[in-house]
Amino acid sequence: MLDDSNKVQGLFIGIDGGGTKCKAILVNEHNHILGTGISGPANPLHGFEQATQSITESARLALIDAGYSANLLASIPAGVGLAGVNLPVLFDQMNNWQHPFKDMHLATDLLIACLGAHNGQDGAVMITGTGSCGFVHVDGVSEIVGAHGFPHGDKGSGAWVGLQAAKQVLLSLDELVEPTLLTDAVLSHLAVSNAVEMVEAIAGKPAAFYAQMAGLVFEAAQKDDPVATAVVQEGADYISRVAKRLLTKQPPNISLIGGLGPLITPWLSPDVQQRLVPPTFPPEMGAVIFARQQA
Amino acid sequence: MLDDSNKVQGLFIGIDGGGTKCKAILVNEHNHILGTGISGPANPLHGFEQATQSITESARLALIDAGYSANLLASIPAGVGLAGVNLPVLFDQMNNWQHPFKDMHLATDLLIACLGAHNGQDGAVMITGTGSCGFVHVDGVSEIVGAHGFPHGDKGSGAWVGLQAAKQVLLSLDELVEPTLLTDAVLSHLAVSNAVEMVEAIAGKPAAFYAQMAGLVFEAAQKDDPVATAVVQEGADYISRVAKRLLTKQPPNISLIGGLGPLITPWLSPDVQQRLVPPTFPPEMGAVIFARQQA
Repeated sequence: MLDDSNKVQGLFIGIDGGGTKCKAILVNEHNHILGTGISGPANPLHGFEQATQSITESARLALIDAGYSANLLASIPAGVGLAGVNLPVLFDQMNNWQHPFKDMHLATDLLIACLGAHNGQDGAVMITGTGSCGFVHVDGVSEIVGAHGFPHGDKGSGAWVGLQAAKQVLLSLDELVEPTLLTDAVLSHLAVSNAVEMVEAIAGKPAAFYAQMAGLVFEAAQKDDPVATAVVQEGADYISRVAKRLLTKQPPNISLIGGLGPLITPWLSPDVQQRLVPPTFPPEMGAVIFARQQA
Repeated sequence: MLDDSNKVQGLFIGIDGGGTKCKAILVNEHNHILGTGISGPANPLHGFEQATQSITESARLALIDAGYSANLLASIPAGVGLAGVNLPVLFDQMNNWQHPFKDMHLATDLLIACLGAHNGQDGAVMITGTGSCGFVHVDGVSEIVGAHGFPHGDKGSGAWVGLQAAKQVLLSLDELVEPTLLTDAVLSHLAVSNAVEMVEAIAGKPAAFYAQMAGLVFEAAQKDDPVATAVVQEGADYISRVAKRLLTKQPPNISLIGGLGPLITPWLSPDVQQRLVPPTFPPEMGAVIFARQQA
């Protein structure tokens, strides 16, 4: 067996931590992926303990997946991109964390997504997953649009789409608006049959819970359900407006990433759709690129 | 000094517990108010411990206000009306509470509000405070419209108005919509100056926090601020629709109660405004009326 210093030569961990899950990769000196790990939510806005546990867990899993001992964590530098740390107070909290890595290079989920999508070059990204936001990085200057969180922001995100649908279904159960097939789809998804049961099922639930309803809303919209169509189109119009704001900064390229991307793309304005390029690498590789730039 | 059994003869405690505060009254056999007490939030949806502490505290304060020892709590029956207990799971939880009263008669905040507003007779109420809902009680049959909670329901409530305003202000700070005087009013209220600071100030905040912003939104609407006007009118239109649904059940009278009532009434549809009668008694007296009916 090699000694640790040889084993870990050139290795980096890249982490992308969001509101739903945390992804980690272990890469070698050529950025080839040796192992991957996935764990739970890692947005410190929703809890510091949960976030730090998820980050450590995903990294340990990536090491084990690559055939390494998880004990090597302390010998490998990590790039960590996290949702929520665009808020200075959360950035400071996470940056002061007694992390398990050799070094930790902390960045926003937006920056690592952009660096990954455009292989470390200037560009713009829109992220539509559990949350939503836009980010542009040109000539060393970054700008964020959105990224405000749930329930006060994140329009066009999975959580927003799910919450809007839930509100509309509750109005229909109160006979204040006409029910549509979305009503049955949501009740069936939640395994409830009336407003009281539905409120019990959704009360106090976090963004990730609502984001799980987004798929059925898009499905209903594809079947021309008028309520679902209105929700999806309003969300997509917001994302299109974000894209146009980002494009005023003249990024060479713009990509749409996140779990909702394939569903929402057809609803974006045609000029925005034409500008979109597929991302080169996923955000967790952007975290590696960031860490190598910093290290 | 009289012995306890004489002192408490005919006394009742009436409690109205909502998302923002808990009010208690101590009344004599003629329902004359001997003392009042106010404490913190008492909606068990937002925490059982907090709710039960607020209920006990408000009742103790009412006894002390009346010149009685708080130890007499165990000798006096109480009517307790609470937000949240329209959900069966919360009703059961609260009803199984080892309460400090002689007896506890538990009802929804809606029923006690309606009994109070119409002095124990049939009628309907709409409540617009931190939350919103409608309730009608005719010929022994009750129906609830709304009362779904925050952030998925409670349209037209103070929390809803505040949240809508916050969303619009964030969009204006991202330069996705034009700022209006509402933007400055909200930033000033929160003592922040940009989107990042604003998100730090509002992230994870409960309904009561947003309800505190409702007043400035109505103020801006009265000055013809277009964004504030659109928010207020959408909320008021919902309350008008709730009223019309309740009126289909032919209640003899309908009242609008809750802290937002005076602000939102002028925005309701004229036919709804004409039907509104002032409430006879406040909800905490409705809790006493309920307890006497049950005792």
